[in-house]
Amino acid sequence: MNLKPTVLAGMILAGFFGTTAMGGGHADPAIVAAVKARQSAMTLYSFNLGLLGGMAKGQIEYDADAATRAAASLAALTQLDQSRMWPPGSDTESLGAEMTAALPKIWMAGSKAGEIGGQLKEAAVAMEGAAGNGLDALRGAIGNVGKACGACHDGYRQPKN
Amino acid sequence: MNLKPTVLAGMILAGFFGTTAMGGGHADPAIVAAVKARQSAMTLYSFNLGLLGGMAKGQIEYDADAATRAAASLAALTQLDQSRMWPPGSDTESLGAEMTAALPKIWMAGSKAGEIGGQLKEAAVAMEGAAGNGLDALRGAIGNVGKACGACHDGYRQPKN
Repeated sequence: MNLKPTVLAGMILAGFFGTTAMGGGHADPAIVAAVKARQSAMTLYSFNLGLLGGMAKGQIEYDADAATRAAASLAALTQLDQSRMWPPGSDTESLGAEMTAALPKIWMAGSKAGEIGGQLKEAAVAMEGAAGNGLDALRGAIGNVGKACGACHDGYRQPKN
Repeated sequence: MNLKPTVLAGMILAGFFGTTAMGGGHADPAIVAAVKARQSAMTLYSFNLGLLGGMAKGQIEYDADAATRAAASLAALTQLDQSRMWPPGSDTESLGAEMTAALPKIWMAGSKAGEIGGQLKEAAVAMEGAAGNGLDALRGAIGNVGKACGACHDGYRQPKN
């Protein structure tokens, strides 16, 4: 193979960030890394919420220790600095919907995205305190977590086809 | 389209976890989710370490606030419960190298993976305290973080071709 250094660097970067399938070939690598970071945070939210939600719905047997660990993980995730994950120019119109579902209005005047992020943080901290105190306590706390997730997804995420 | 329910469920799950490109079509969805979760955690490690490392090398201008936020994020990430992310059967031999680079010896007697994880946690907490105290303090703390990353990658990750 005889690859130009820029192509090779792109391949290495894509491998490093695991973005080969994201189609970010023409995008700024810093923007691609930010998109990948926030998508990774979402994956980890859902990984932990999947367990808590499964318990809340009775699909997974309630286990106080496992619930506490998942809720503590979720709370830790909401402590991540999000400011570097949402650079201007990382929306659906700039990057295309195959790369991100983040609608441009996240960055526009009147955006409630930051405020909703604060609500998620509060709800996750409350969940961390509640998850180990029985299934009713977990069920009582998960509503506000889901509400924050939904508020951002409904208002600021491009619907899936 | 006339898709069988199981195929459709797989597509929905893949969309939810963003794993369409992972080739996990025949793998247990819980295993696929665990692999994706740990890979997401790695992506977020590297997102934050990228900034700290860039500052340490003088490639990015030192900024105490930005360094502190990145180091706090890294420390928060090391608090995630890793136990659900590494289920038995999620190694290169079980899943194939296109899906994971985690070598089987992670799960074998004598594995130091958990111990190295503890070293990473300690190093990240130390980095959180140091990153805002000037470039020399950041440089002094990053070595142990990189050492823990390298120890696990060198010993337990399948080398890239």
